[in-house]
Amino acid sequence: MNKVCLVGYGNTKFSRENISIDSLLLSATKSLFEQNTNLNQKDIDAVIVSTNDNTKYLAAILSEIAGIKPKIAHTVESLCNSGANSTVSAYSYIASGLAKVVLVVGAERYDSPGQILDWDKSRGEFKHPIFWGSIFTKSHKRKFGTTEEELAIVSAKNHKNAQENPHAYSHKNYTVEELLNSKKLTEDLKVSDCSRSCTGASAILLASEDISKKFSSHPVKIKGIGQKTVSAGFTKNANFSCMQSTVDAGKMAYEMAGIKASDVDVAEIHDAFTVCELMALEDLGFVSHGKGAKYVKNLFDTENRKINPRGGLIGSGHPLGATGIAQIIEILQQLQGVAGKRQVENCKVGLVHNMSAAATSSTVLLLES
Amino acid sequence: MNKVCLVGYGNTKFSRENISIDSLLLSATKSLFEQNTNLNQKDIDAVIVSTNDNTKYLAAILSEIAGIKPKIAHTVESLCNSGANSTVSAYSYIASGLAKVVLVVGAERYDSPGQILDWDKSRGEFKHPIFWGSIFTKSHKRKFGTTEEELAIVSAKNHKNAQENPHAYSHKNYTVEELLNSKKLTEDLKVSDCSRSCTGASAILLASEDISKKFSSHPVKIKGIGQKTVSAGFTKNANFSCMQSTVDAGKMAYEMAGIKASDVDVAEIHDAFTVCELMALEDLGFVSHGKGAKYVKNLFDTENRKINPRGGLIGSGHPLGATGIAQIIEILQQLQGVAGKRQVENCKVGLVHNMSAAATSSTVLLLES
Repeated sequence: MNKVCLVGYGNTKFSRENISIDSLLLSATKSLFEQNTNLNQKDIDAVIVSTNDNTKYLAAILSEIAGIKPKIAHTVESLCNSGANSTVSAYSYIASGLAKVVLVVGAERYDSPGQILDWDKSRGEFKHPIFWGSIFTKSHKRKFGTTEEELAIVSAKNHKNAQENPHAYSHKNYTVEELLNSKKLTEDLKVSDCSRSCTGASAILLASEDISKKFSSHPVKIKGIGQKTVSAGFTKNANFSCMQSTVDAGKMAYEMAGIKASDVDVAEIHDAFTVCELMALEDLGFVSHGKGAKYVKNLFDTENRKINPRGGLIGSGHPLGATGIAQIIEILQQLQGVAGKRQVENCKVGLVHNMSAAATSSTVLLLES
Repeated sequence: MNKVCLVGYGNTKFSRENISIDSLLLSATKSLFEQNTNLNQKDIDAVIVSTNDNTKYLAAILSEIAGIKPKIAHTVESLCNSGANSTVSAYSYIASGLAKVVLVVGAERYDSPGQILDWDKSRGEFKHPIFWGSIFTKSHKRKFGTTEEELAIVSAKNHKNAQENPHAYSHKNYTVEELLNSKKLTEDLKVSDCSRSCTGASAILLASEDISKKFSSHPVKIKGIGQKTVSAGFTKNANFSCMQSTVDAGKMAYEMAGIKASDVDVAEIHDAFTVCELMALEDLGFVSHGKGAKYVKNLFDTENRKINPRGGLIGSGHPLGATGIAQIIEILQQLQGVAGKRQVENCKVGLVHNMSAAATSSTVLLLES
């Protein structure tokens, strides 16, 4: 079986701009080609598009406008977890020998139809993700005594980290006090607790290890993959202060890679809401349950960028289908030691956590330098 | 690397009924479970949905309502070629070791947004597939002298074959004369030359060869896979009487399988329009270029079901995302010798040809008993 490496990336700025989905896909692809001068269109065996956009046949459209004639070309959709799903699919095409080089491009517009959960009838009128964000937050507060200030610290840290991310949606800095005064959306959620849907695209290139040096002087290996879907509607959860799909996906990824949480040097965590960062850190074993807030406060106080160095979804913005790819790019850059002012020192092992719809599904990837 | 087998299937009737996409997915899945009594929900590692429907998160929704908690769950879209693309993705998940058992379910409604090619600006106002169907037909007529009667014979054969397909959209029989009097849509296309978009769903189960006997007494191996995307808009074609993506995908599949066109005992061909069956038979090497019509006339005259035994798209109907899966089911049943009145004798090797949008992309699968 072929081993699989990440060998290239391309990004657009995340914004609220009104850009067509095909232009977004092309911009990230162009950026990838510009940074990988050894890459020729003919090298690419598969083009996978990650998006919730309703436009059909986007992988063929992107291929045509980018001058690529791939074997495999299709769209992968799994809401906010589309990016990591696409990457796992790309991994399997290479590992199985059907492809040597795969381009994965995630793109989304600020008005993506993936923002509204109108398929989940159990939610009644509560179709916006803030519904489950509120319930998770209330549950974590009740069970662990998590405070509004602790949640504001997650947001402050991620906004601060995003200042050094040139592609972030916003570069504003906020004090914890300012965030505590942010507009209330529900009893338990403030505007500053939420990631913002936006426009953006991110592209990565994966290659079989045996040819990876052709494209990158520093290929990064995909060592562990874990995925789990527990349901589509989260209201069946037994427990709203733990994300079971994240627990399961994490275990699977650690086992495949032979890596423990304590081995991870840097991680991108799917902070759709501030509470999700705390929960994911607990569910992935970075810290025990209920101790996530203390862990994040320590990072914030010591200016440690280990968790969400690019600013996470809250700091960088959340273009749904692009998010998982953008997370992977950050860890790739960190492990290659090219993250500039965001660089975490001595990174050898990185983790990506991408999820959908109240953590009804999660993907965890473990990357190694 | 794990070898991959087809070990189960389930179908709905193809119709014009107004059924929700989630009900369609569930119906085909239920039918599959009813026919595979050894299958438990816990066995399924991945659920892939093939559709052009705009509903998001369908693989998770299907999983929840079917009681499955898979690792991998996502939608694959590549217009009419979504079904074969999903199956290749399932193959790669098993071959790479990420999954042991994968459920692939294709479903579409009669009003699918995949019918309108509104992304192809080069077509101007000609957004309906009959635009390219007409150009292909005119080109084949000019180059090879193909007659309206020869095209009507393709339609007559496929409608006749569909009479023994319990899931076909229609069971009407037509004489060649009746079809020649079918309503003209364009200078070169009659209603009877066109496949009809419809409502329907089809499901297949794939498993790693080492555990395939648990689910089927007669697993069928996936021996060859070929895929090619040449463009998104077909107007760049150098030649409108040959489908280059089909030529390329066919060569790739034959090479991978070590099988020649002359070894193929039974085939499902993507007859979106009558001319496509002739072109595909030529492009896949069943017969030389320009000889497709003679080949089909001989099948029709001798009541030979070798090509499109279930009635093809023209006879069975064309629920876009389900079509590739339905084609695979037919070849699976033929190779298992359970195709009833449709059975082609002594089937050992079968071929599936599924394509999108004027053959701008094609997938070819070779299956072996």
